[in-house]
Amino acid sequence: MKVLVVGANGQIGRHFVKLLADSPEHTPIAMIRVEEQISYFNSLNVETVVTSLEGTVEEIAAAMDGCDAVVFTAGSGGGTGADKTLLIDLDGAAKTIEAASQTGTDRFLMVSAIHADRRDMWGDDIAPYYVAKHHADNILRASGLTYTIIRPGLLTNDPGTGRIKATEYVDAGPIPREDVAKVLLHSLNNLHVFNKTFEIISGDDEIEEALNRL
Amino acid sequence: MKVLVVGANGQIGRHFVKLLADSPEHTPIAMIRVEEQISYFNSLNVETVVTSLEGTVEEIAAAMDGCDAVVFTAGSGGGTGADKTLLIDLDGAAKTIEAASQTGTDRFLMVSAIHADRRDMWGDDIAPYYVAKHHADNILRASGLTYTIIRPGLLTNDPGTGRIKATEYVDAGPIPREDVAKVLLHSLNNLHVFNKTFEIISGDDEIEEALNRL
Repeated sequence: MKVLVVGANGQIGRHFVKLLADSPEHTPIAMIRVEEQISYFNSLNVETVVTSLEGTVEEIAAAMDGCDAVVFTAGSGGGTGADKTLLIDLDGAAKTIEAASQTGTDRFLMVSAIHADRRDMWGDDIAPYYVAKHHADNILRASGLTYTIIRPGLLTNDPGTGRIKATEYVDAGPIPREDVAKVLLHSLNNLHVFNKTFEIISGDDEIEEALNRL
Repeated sequence: MKVLVVGANGQIGRHFVKLLADSPEHTPIAMIRVEEQISYFNSLNVETVVTSLEGTVEEIAAAMDGCDAVVFTAGSGGGTGADKTLLIDLDGAAKTIEAASQTGTDRFLMVSAIHADRRDMWGDDIAPYYVAKHHADNILRASGLTYTIIRPGLLTNDPGTGRIKATEYVDAGPIPREDVAKVLLHSLNNLHVFNKTFEIISGDDEIEEALNRL
């Protein structure tokens, strides 16, 4: 599969692009925001496309040209305000979903956040971010695209273990970003996770086995 | 009709509650955020319910008890940040829509904003607000409720004229808040605006006539 990675320069994005580049079956296209981010991907021999999520649906659709799948792992990040949460995490996702529908790029994977469907578990400080993720996920589920929504727990930079717990709802817990990237890779063409939403933290199960049980 | 007015203490909300209170056909219930706002509505002999849009769907559903229609004219306002835009204008609306679905309150009117479907017309400063309104409107349209989405142009405090221009898209232009309230009143049980989205500015047409043409 040719996979557009939206948010390729993010921490999960970089892990995931490497996994795709090392995989014999897949080819990543790294969608990045600014030209300064190109050199890193050049060093991996990965094709890039410079397209901002604050641009138009048409620009995002053009970035998707020839791709079989889209993985959305972009986020405005903790360093910006809630205005960027609205523009990137919500509307950037919505525009990417519209672009996928317009271009017939039917396979769409979303990196969401644990408990994004449970308003009662959103702490005050994080609630605005969760509003954006919750509704972006709802837009994807209503889109008619073949979606997978992956909701990791507390992200860490620990090395991946390749072992997770995955169910519709899990209790809070950590998971290395590298393992989230591995779950994305295993989810791309695993029928068991088509049109599913699930949460992941580190656990005892091999990723493939955990996904097959969903 | 017994009408829950969400955002009753806002500028459009106050006009609209008065119109309902003066109407022989309708009874307003003013949904307000804090107890300090009760006395104003007591002076109009209008029933109030104190319920925050940052509360739960269940709390909002309880406020709706026995109502035939909901009018959403709440907004976090220009004095707060984009975090409140996410919590009130987007998720507060979404929770109110969910509450209406749960309670079978089928008639739902939304005060939106001109050009909320046209990303190319959103200025940089106002874009985050528009993201919230755009997606709240989309959530309502997908809800299965009998909706009317009214998108006024530049709101003014001029006295209402009772004359408007109303079409799917209009060019920018001003409209008194009092006229927006009148459009809400005329829209409540006008079949021509059921499941419609339209924009309004001041114009030449009587409100009823303008709505009948939609």
